[in-house]
Amino acid sequence: MEVTNRFITIKNPVDGAPRESDFETKAEALSLKLEPGSSDIIVKNLYVSIDPYQINRLKSHSSSQSASSFAVRIIPGDTIDASGVARVVASGNPEFEKGDLIVGLLAWGDYTVVKPGGMLRKFDPMGFPLSYQVGILGFSGLTAYAGFFEIGKPKKGEKVFVSAASGSVGHLVGQYAKLFGCYVVGSAGSKEKVIFFALPFESTDMYFPDGIDIYFDNVGAEMQEAAIANMNTYGRVAVCGVISEYTDGKKRAAPEMLDVIYKRIKFQGFLAADHLNLYQDFISTTCNHLRSGAIYPLEDISDGVESIPSAFTGLFQGGNIGKKVVRITEE
Amino acid sequence: MEVTNRFITIKNPVDGAPRESDFETKAEALSLKLEPGSSDIIVKNLYVSIDPYQINRLKSHSSSQSASSFAVRIIPGDTIDASGVARVVASGNPEFEKGDLIVGLLAWGDYTVVKPGGMLRKFDPMGFPLSYQVGILGFSGLTAYAGFFEIGKPKKGEKVFVSAASGSVGHLVGQYAKLFGCYVVGSAGSKEKVIFFALPFESTDMYFPDGIDIYFDNVGAEMQEAAIANMNTYGRVAVCGVISEYTDGKKRAAPEMLDVIYKRIKFQGFLAADHLNLYQDFISTTCNHLRSGAIYPLEDISDGVESIPSAFTGLFQGGNIGKKVVRITEE
Repeated sequence: MEVTNRFITIKNPVDGAPRESDFETKAEALSLKLEPGSSDIIVKNLYVSIDPYQINRLKSHSSSQSASSFAVRIIPGDTIDASGVARVVASGNPEFEKGDLIVGLLAWGDYTVVKPGGMLRKFDPMGFPLSYQVGILGFSGLTAYAGFFEIGKPKKGEKVFVSAASGSVGHLVGQYAKLFGCYVVGSAGSKEKVIFFALPFESTDMYFPDGIDIYFDNVGAEMQEAAIANMNTYGRVAVCGVISEYTDGKKRAAPEMLDVIYKRIKFQGFLAADHLNLYQDFISTTCNHLRSGAIYPLEDISDGVESIPSAFTGLFQGGNIGKKVVRITEE
Repeated sequence: MEVTNRFITIKNPVDGAPRESDFETKAEALSLKLEPGSSDIIVKNLYVSIDPYQINRLKSHSSSQSASSFAVRIIPGDTIDASGVARVVASGNPEFEKGDLIVGLLAWGDYTVVKPGGMLRKFDPMGFPLSYQVGILGFSGLTAYAGFFEIGKPKKGEKVFVSAASGSVGHLVGQYAKLFGCYVVGSAGSKEKVIFFALPFESTDMYFPDGIDIYFDNVGAEMQEAAIANMNTYGRVAVCGVISEYTDGKKRAAPEMLDVIYKRIKFQGFLAADHLNLYQDFISTTCNHLRSGAIYPLEDISDGVESIPSAFTGLFQGGNIGKKVVRITEE
């Protein structure tokens, strides 16, 4: 059986704010039958994740390529990989069989052909929506959990500031922090987001009369400088992302280093992939919170491969609230 | 008995590079006999430390005042405190008696009147020059030791970059790192310093074909940016001081945050005072190295109270090598 596989690619490197016209949809014929002896796995994509960090792979130059697979450059015309949920349609790997639900590194498209060594695992939805596997129960959730608990090392009652607090990771950090017993303030890019969250946001000064103990940074630049200026002694900065710097090469955070020294501030970049040791804790804690209704995951779901470019560009226009996901098909 | 006590003060806040004309020597009559019932201790200063960080206390505005006593502003006309070595001449405190050698927080001047609660302790010179108590066996040494071992968390064979590597702290970090088994490159402000140390210095790229694992930052600004750009995954930055930013309020380090994230770089400001738990280790290790000749402390000693202003301003002109100390008197 042969199908048409549509996938999204870039026409050119994307160095500023991404526009829908930077992307195009390609179509190729794809046989759903494997060659004899092949170890590939063909999956039908159900949900794919749309994440701000992907912009850094679409640029003409990726300075940190060697440091992480998350930074490897994507060439115009290539498929764009992303975490996602899919169903196996053909498998040359004895560990997977047709019909299995998997989560892993897929492509922005209808189907993904996963080569041997590709990142895939079967999962049990445990009664939760499949989309949660790329959001609250996937890398977004683990990023929030690991960054807050492992990098932030919170103590009850500490004051936590989260930037991009309505984003895929930020809205979970805020909720983990509140459930843990911290005082939390978030910032978001627009009034509607703030109202939606009932998070106060005008200036960091106004809401931190007792200073900031933990800053969970999703934004970088001036916001990071302001957070450090308002930080308490022994404060911690978990640097998760710097979305305001991604599309403007001249934007940088230049915090006052005397503050960093005198307040003995710790500052750490991190990736969730380094914290898989927390995975069981993270899943059991988060599933309990989900079942009790204590945590509320926000999703912003678009439909169809063709909606991917606008879903992605919207991330940089303040257009989404919560985890951005594209549902490729209902099955 | 009454003496004339000369001390150094500032005529005005010092906001740019310090000039000798910013300072003046004052003289006051000081009785070396305590009032009955006084708990003060009067000491005759022998050596006082001259440190770059002191500039931050002489400015018209100290942003981090509340965070550390090292940042509390000094008002024109006041004495300027500094660590130093002295001999007790009169004591109202039963724990100290006339003739005791002490190390502690003294004033840039001939004598210091230490009020109850002041930081003083007796010490045994152990056969080493008294000046070592403010250098290699004092806060400079502990700063190098704690910053390198506790913040840097080195492993043998790792690549270490030290800026201001001929300074009071930097030249010890380099030596601790070499003795520990690391590959070390230092930067210094002038060709003579480089030759003196036989430390190569042109660009960080040239000397780190395998990248930097630990950056011991004494300088800040562009040097910090360059170090982070050349850093390996899981690199650590111990932020000890940022001398290039002290006298230029517009100079800031703005490292590439994508490097910080993708390379999971840890960045930490620190003060030696937080690491007194290491004190015994530090002293025993360092005394062993001194006795075996494995470590070589560099000192740059000037004589007399009147030499303090030029000793201090010289720190910002690249004029000294090693620990800058003023010998107030030979006794």
